Amino acid sequence: MNSFDLNAYLSSKRQQINAALDSMFLHTSRKLVKAMKHSLMAGGKRLRPILCLAAAETVGGNSQDAIQASCAIEMIHTYSLIHDDLPAMDDDELRRGQPTCHAIFDEATAILAGDALLTMAFEVLSLMDSSREGQAMDLIHVVHTLAVAAGYQGMIEGQMQDIAAEGESLSLKDLEKMHALKTGSLIEASVTTGAILGRGTAFQVQQLNIYAKNIGLAFQVTDDILNIEGDPMIMGKNVGSDQIRLKSTYPSVLGMDQSKQFAKKLVSNALKALENFDTKAHSLRAIANYIIDRKK
Amino acid sequence: MNSFDLNAYLSSKRQQINAALDSMFLHTSRKLVKAMKHSLMAGGKRLRPILCLAAAETVGGNSQDAIQASCAIEMIHTYSLIHDDLPAMDDDELRRGQPTCHAIFDEATAILAGDALLTMAFEVLSLMDSSREGQAMDLIHVVHTLAVAAGYQGMIEGQMQDIAAEGESLSLKDLEKMHALKTGSLIEASVTTGAILGRGTAFQVQQLNIYAKNIGLAFQVTDDILNIEGDPMIMGKNVGSDQIRLKSTYPSVLGMDQSKQFAKKLVSNALKALENFDTKAHSLRAIANYIIDRKK
Repeated sequence: MNSFDLNAYLSSKRQQINAALDSMFLHTSRKLVKAMKHSLMAGGKRLRPILCLAAAETVGGNSQDAIQASCAIEMIHTYSLIHDDLPAMDDDELRRGQPTCHAIFDEATAILAGDALLTMAFEVLSLMDSSREGQAMDLIHVVHTLAVAAGYQGMIEGQMQDIAAEGESLSLKDLEKMHALKTGSLIEASVTTGAILGRGTAFQVQQLNIYAKNIGLAFQVTDDILNIEGDPMIMGKNVGSDQIRLKSTYPSVLGMDQSKQFAKKLVSNALKALENFDTKAHSLRAIANYIIDRKK
Repeated sequence: MNSFDLNAYLSSKRQQINAALDSMFLHTSRKLVKAMKHSLMAGGKRLRPILCLAAAETVGGNSQDAIQASCAIEMIHTYSLIHDDLPAMDDDELRRGQPTCHAIFDEATAILAGDALLTMAFEVLSLMDSSREGQAMDLIHVVHTLAVAAGYQGMIEGQMQDIAAEGESLSLKDLEKMHALKTGSLIEASVTTGAILGRGTAFQVQQLNIYAKNIGLAFQVTDDILNIEGDPMIMGKNVGSDQIRLKSTYPSVLGMDQSKQFAKKLVSNALKALENFDTKAHSLRAIANYIIDRKK
């Protein structure tokens, strides 16, 4: 499609994000910090923070403008994984190829490590360079965007609906609604946040929102496909768990072929929303394709 | 001490806070919101948000300047109670005279309701009237103060130390350190936040910090005393639980009489820090005395 080297881009951004994340912690041997870092530094894809940085660049900003917000987003994402994996929820022992937080520490520590990562996200957000004009207003806007996306009208309600849906047969509409909340809202906020901190125009932010809605859903459809067809060695987590839990998924509602078609259609919508952007949007374009081609 | 009517003050502030809290939720019958409101509206003392409002007034501001921050603080406090009460932590069935969140709903819902209240605190903080000059900078300052106080170097680390200390004999120094983190940091942040939003001077904020450190500790010493001598009917929770769990408390380390003396000394220190304030500090003065005289 273009000569953009996505692997090099992802790898360089991952390094930038990992270095920033690592630098944010005090050096300490405290159990709480160990548990937080165990899950945070376990080698995730960093999709959400990379989207945040790429969005900042796409609207003409600098990835450094959004690095702390991107770290905050990864902290929010990681806390949600730690809590979702708890025995009272999905009861998963393996995540990102590592034992889950409660499996390696204990349940109380995992709950508190999740709480601490969520809280630290807002600490990190509120530490940005306030000498930049208009920065405080942008930051309040970003705090608000992330809190709404991650909160009781966003990601957490999505997790509630996901739990309630176990063993139920969801309609396509309810399945989409659940995923838009559970996965979509934080992906959307990652892109929006990057666009705000990169000082995008209202039109740019709006187009990137359409992009984000589409890739967010495409991401979930692909996750459902990988849960059936994926290689557990590559994925670093167990497959087939959706079927065991009788979860409604895109393949179970639409069938496998239709699900793959649907994911492609969503990516094509996402690319269309980027039509008015120049070559600075190459990273977002390549990420859209990557989302349905990935193996983990 | 003075003719200040503390009961009327507390009751009017409680009403103001409860009305504001209630107004912040969408009308919905969703289980997540029900669980959040169950714990949030269960009739707590509202000590922390009242301290926040009183601090704003003490430095010459208006309680309305700090009402949203005070709601955010109560959300953070309530989330911490919901998570502390979980089976994996203190495993408490009764709180504020009501069944705890996991007892009336379920464990997954309680974890998520706690997460949602913590997240909503930052949503509420970032919604304040940004037309006021300098407001965004003050808000970022407040977001930061609360995130640090509630986070891995504050309240959550305190809870980790509290769990680790069960069955251990703590020294007075370690007991103080644990309580300074677990209870003290959020009480201190409540006062600081109110002072910031009420536009206090640096000297005023500093003096109110000394006040807050002292009443925060006095509050905990009194809690330990009430856990032995309190009336469960008045307290709305079980007593004697510290002894059952072999927790180190001020009475167990210092003895009961010495603990009561210590609490009085702390309140006297707190009052001393208010010496340079005028009659607007009457509420904070009366609250300091109330903290060791309370029956619940």
